[in-house]
Amino acid sequence: VSVLVTGAAGFVAATLIDRLLARGDRVLGLDNFSRGSRALLGDKPRHPGFTFEEADLSSLESFRSALGAYQGEPIREVWHLAANSDIPAGVADMNVDLRDTFMTTFNTLSIMEERGIKRLYFSSSSAIYGDHGERSLAEDSGPLLPLSNYGAMKLASEAIISAAAEKFLETAALFRFPNVVGAPATHGVILDFVRRLKTDRRVLQVLGNGSQKKAYLHISDLVEAMLFVQSRQIPRVDIVNIGPTDSGVTVRQIAEETVQVAAPGAELAFGTGDRGWVGDVPRFRYSTDKLQKLGWQPKLDSLGAIRRAIHEICKQECLA
Amino acid sequence: VSVLVTGAAGFVAATLIDRLLARGDRVLGLDNFSRGSRALLGDKPRHPGFTFEEADLSSLESFRSALGAYQGEPIREVWHLAANSDIPAGVADMNVDLRDTFMTTFNTLSIMEERGIKRLYFSSSSAIYGDHGERSLAEDSGPLLPLSNYGAMKLASEAIISAAAEKFLETAALFRFPNVVGAPATHGVILDFVRRLKTDRRVLQVLGNGSQKKAYLHISDLVEAMLFVQSRQIPRVDIVNIGPTDSGVTVRQIAEETVQVAAPGAELAFGTGDRGWVGDVPRFRYSTDKLQKLGWQPKLDSLGAIRRAIHEICKQECLA
Repeated sequence: VSVLVTGAAGFVAATLIDRLLARGDRVLGLDNFSRGSRALLGDKPRHPGFTFEEADLSSLESFRSALGAYQGEPIREVWHLAANSDIPAGVADMNVDLRDTFMTTFNTLSIMEERGIKRLYFSSSSAIYGDHGERSLAEDSGPLLPLSNYGAMKLASEAIISAAAEKFLETAALFRFPNVVGAPATHGVILDFVRRLKTDRRVLQVLGNGSQKKAYLHISDLVEAMLFVQSRQIPRVDIVNIGPTDSGVTVRQIAEETVQVAAPGAELAFGTGDRGWVGDVPRFRYSTDKLQKLGWQPKLDSLGAIRRAIHEICKQECLA
Repeated sequence: VSVLVTGAAGFVAATLIDRLLARGDRVLGLDNFSRGSRALLGDKPRHPGFTFEEADLSSLESFRSALGAYQGEPIREVWHLAANSDIPAGVADMNVDLRDTFMTTFNTLSIMEERGIKRLYFSSSSAIYGDHGERSLAEDSGPLLPLSNYGAMKLASEAIISAAAEKFLETAALFRFPNVVGAPATHGVILDFVRRLKTDRRVLQVLGNGSQKKAYLHISDLVEAMLFVQSRQIPRVDIVNIGPTDSGVTVRQIAEETVQVAAPGAELAFGTGDRGWVGDVPRFRYSTDKLQKLGWQPKLDSLGAIRRAIHEICKQECLA
């Protein structure tokens, strides 16, 4: 079968598409390179099962014409990963997440309805919950009060997918991602730290006081979890929190671990306040009980994921 | 102070604006007459405190130019009521609720940020919850899985308002409306029944089997509840379910009550299935404990609201 992956030149797709090709799927990847890059496609363009089209999925015309150019078998499922990934940029300008995070979803559904494609796998986010302090957040927790436009437009995407499932979808998996780390990194706290240390090997300036504590999952575990859920019989609309089982690591720990690898001996300089930016959730507890009950466990906990990602990203940035 | 009311020519605004004018506010009303009508403005255009501008709020340019034309005092608060109100139309075409239910909210927030307006009162909907069977739905219930694009775009609106509250709003009240009845009616089950009975006084055809049971609130109680909540010290983002305390009435009861007033002796003919249309929630239990604990009670229960609305709408349609 053919599988459509949106955001194909992004961080998550880089690993996911390799796994889909490895299981024998033909993959059509679409991306506008707004956040991803051609380099992130890596070796994929040489794979006979992979086709790539450049398209701006926030434009229905661009989306349709990219699909019109595709000569492969009919598309049976869609992995919709396209989104803005720069949360502060989306806070500064509401239009960024409207366009790249929500309208890409809206148009994906329009296209799926037009073409009778009925299986959707969607990268939602823990950012839809908002700040609930120390409360453990499960799939049915509420109220949902996102702090960023990114989180808001992920929640809007969940909502419109839910309505589409009532109308025409057979399966819609809403994967709520935690912070995901690994290579090829395009954004995120580790890449930010590594790049800062490249320009100044003596001091690492950290936004906020470093006390923000979050759970992190390695990209390899994230992709495994999604394929595991897909392989199960799932309800029409299935929300699944994906994450490690531990309560996470602090920004301070990440900074210390990064310095150890990238610039041993560098000093840490912290800001004030427990938020790095508007829309940053200072503390975050995420229940992954549902996924564990289905029988899945990550190979790496938050600290393990961070450590592996630091090594991968230092290598990527030529620092190790 | 000046108050901006969007959807000013709609059903809810018809009653709300009268109350705002009565308490001494100056009101700027905006509407594009897509669902509302100039007739629904009633006597308001003759009130010295009321100004009306025709504008399509899904267009930021149209919105800005309508505000530019306004000569009154600076606007201090916004009651954002503009939305699509034809749920089946929005199911048939996703663009309807994107444009009229969501983009009007998005643009309202853009305008508020531009102008430094920090108090927002928003007509959300019980449609954001989706179908949870007999479970009683409170403000923090989840998951939120709307069945219609209308419900989805109301949830999307809540989400983007929540993010705006993190960035610049001081107060955002998210009022989750139940089914609201009364005059001047523009849509809804009673108006539909009355109009059907005008064309055929012998048989009333009902969509679905009539077993759908929902809570109804009279428009007068709805507006009282919102003004009551506004008069309280409320948190930055406050979600409030508004509704009666009973569990509702069935479509069959509404049909019987309507026939009694509008066309005594008419026969009832039911369809099959427990949903009137895609996106219709067959059964609905709504917790209004939060509002009751704040100290507010409706004057009419669901049956009382339905009965009063039937009389009002029969009068409106010249049937009584």
